[in-house]
Amino acid sequence: MSELKNDRFLRALLKEPVDYTPVWMMRQAGRYLPEYKATRAQAGDFMSLCMNKDLACEVTIQPLERFDLDAAILFSDILTIPDAMGLGLYFEAGEGPRFKKEVRTEADVDAIPVPDPVKDLGYVMDAVKTIRSELNGRVPLIGFSGSPWTLATYMIEGGSSKDFRHIKAMMYSQPEVLHKLMDKLAESVTLYLNEQIRSGAQAVQIFDTWGGALSGPMYQAFSLDYMKKIADGLIREYDGRKVPVIMFTKNGGQWLESMADAGADALGLDWTTDIADARHRVGDKVALQGNMDPSVLYAPADTIRAEVSRILEGYGSGTGHVFNLGHGIHQFVNPDHAKIFVDAVHELSAPYHK
Amino acid sequence: MSELKNDRFLRALLKEPVDYTPVWMMRQAGRYLPEYKATRAQAGDFMSLCMNKDLACEVTIQPLERFDLDAAILFSDILTIPDAMGLGLYFEAGEGPRFKKEVRTEADVDAIPVPDPVKDLGYVMDAVKTIRSELNGRVPLIGFSGSPWTLATYMIEGGSSKDFRHIKAMMYSQPEVLHKLMDKLAESVTLYLNEQIRSGAQAVQIFDTWGGALSGPMYQAFSLDYMKKIADGLIREYDGRKVPVIMFTKNGGQWLESMADAGADALGLDWTTDIADARHRVGDKVALQGNMDPSVLYAPADTIRAEVSRILEGYGSGTGHVFNLGHGIHQFVNPDHAKIFVDAVHELSAPYHK
Repeated sequence: MSELKNDRFLRALLKEPVDYTPVWMMRQAGRYLPEYKATRAQAGDFMSLCMNKDLACEVTIQPLERFDLDAAILFSDILTIPDAMGLGLYFEAGEGPRFKKEVRTEADVDAIPVPDPVKDLGYVMDAVKTIRSELNGRVPLIGFSGSPWTLATYMIEGGSSKDFRHIKAMMYSQPEVLHKLMDKLAESVTLYLNEQIRSGAQAVQIFDTWGGALSGPMYQAFSLDYMKKIADGLIREYDGRKVPVIMFTKNGGQWLESMADAGADALGLDWTTDIADARHRVGDKVALQGNMDPSVLYAPADTIRAEVSRILEGYGSGTGHVFNLGHGIHQFVNPDHAKIFVDAVHELSAPYHK
Repeated sequence: MSELKNDRFLRALLKEPVDYTPVWMMRQAGRYLPEYKATRAQAGDFMSLCMNKDLACEVTIQPLERFDLDAAILFSDILTIPDAMGLGLYFEAGEGPRFKKEVRTEADVDAIPVPDPVKDLGYVMDAVKTIRSELNGRVPLIGFSGSPWTLATYMIEGGSSKDFRHIKAMMYSQPEVLHKLMDKLAESVTLYLNEQIRSGAQAVQIFDTWGGALSGPMYQAFSLDYMKKIADGLIREYDGRKVPVIMFTKNGGQWLESMADAGADALGLDWTTDIADARHRVGDKVALQGNMDPSVLYAPADTIRAEVSRILEGYGSGTGHVFNLGHGIHQFVNPDHAKIFVDAVHELSAPYHK
């Protein structure tokens, strides 16, 4: 593999010195880019795009051509694992992801296989290899997976949910059945991320989109403990280089102290958490990634720069900060505003690294 | 007006001694009750039920007939104010509330009137008077309103939203226009709640369903500051009795210290916040209301009782706790489980009030 030319992102995750704060954007390959929409139209539907390694590579690299980003992230879906388990992932316009089969009973849980990441998810590994080769050392490549809790919400509800009725009913009525499912998911995610690492991913992020819907004790028992189990099973050094692990629980700002003990190198923050408080609370245990409200990108340049400045000042001096949005970039954002954002992070962060 | 026979709820909100922890449930008059569904079918659509004082009174009292609740809450909608502003509230099946007119420009904001609570919202006051009279001192009656920020999200988005695209674009691009709208809303809510108090409401709750979608500084500037303005303008004593004010921001657990300084007597907590931490953080400034996950009501009796017990223990000894769910009761809950919950609060809380 070719030499990594920009390792700012990996260094910041490991709390090593950097010249300025690295930045990437969740969902940086996405519908706000006309070139993405063109490639997606060529692919057909969303999953066909994920399954075509050349087109997945193309959309992964598109935002790097426009913006001075410090990392690329594999273009894929968070629900590839349940799909590989045979649940039949599909997308309905305006409805988000759906599954043909739902998991509702202990028999359903028992019937679920742990997917073989090479045999059953080879298309993801092909995309990772293609992107890594195409990046040619330009920036590091991030691999990712949904968290066990987040995957389980979709599998049990059959799609998106507002109140998580079925999974919470199972959690409170048959916790042992849900634990059995979570064990399978944690094992599946571990195998999946390790294979991404062997295929070329240089850091991995676990997306816990729905952990914030839980009470503290339930978050610990059904989401965080399984992310910790994954972190404990991941390859942490590969090809002579450390492979940092990022955990991101949306609406998880109240649990940062526990998250900092779960084995991640870095925690993702959404915009509801004050990054100065967060740094104080996690101390030297982990790096932090975040945390501008993606909606700030609707604002004029001055406001975007002021918000970047506020967050940089909140984090303060020294390494351990990767700038990001607090959630994925919105589809209606003007790409020129994303450029203003990325450039502002680099320009305004230099003084904090002297 | 007749003597109040059970003032446990009002006393706990004011941190006065009680014999056991009072309890009520957000959305306690609702679709989980077959008798509610029957009355609603009689009324026709949801707003017709709100606008019929006798039927609104009937559904308000229904849960009191089943459960040993310590308060009744006015049956109404949080969006009555924007409807009275002429935006045309309607409900689409499965879609939630919608408005015929959206507020998107400064001209739209300027055109909005501050509703006269007697002339434009008289149906709400009629319901309050009818319910208060029908309650006949059995338990106190809670009045309520949506918070200015929450009302504004629906008015600007035109309905429910996932990412609050339009209101956040306005907030970050034209903050002065949004402040103008928030001023009108704060004035409208103050007039509305004061008229509810004069009509018979003995406590009021401000529901800030969507404040948790903001960053800390924006929550302070666009949600909390306006709730404080309302609290400052409310009638705090009426008919010889204090009228407590409850503020509830869903997903607001990170901002309890600021909320405790905003003039409320009590803060509502959703289930993501640990109530022991919350009590420690707010000190003696306010009472706390909450905070069981409504999904616990899907569980068997033992689990419900264990969760009630955990929360009571978390709050600890002494007054200042009103038990509630962390959000509205779900429509698919078995009413018998709600009874187990209410009875458990009374039974298990006595030792904390010795």
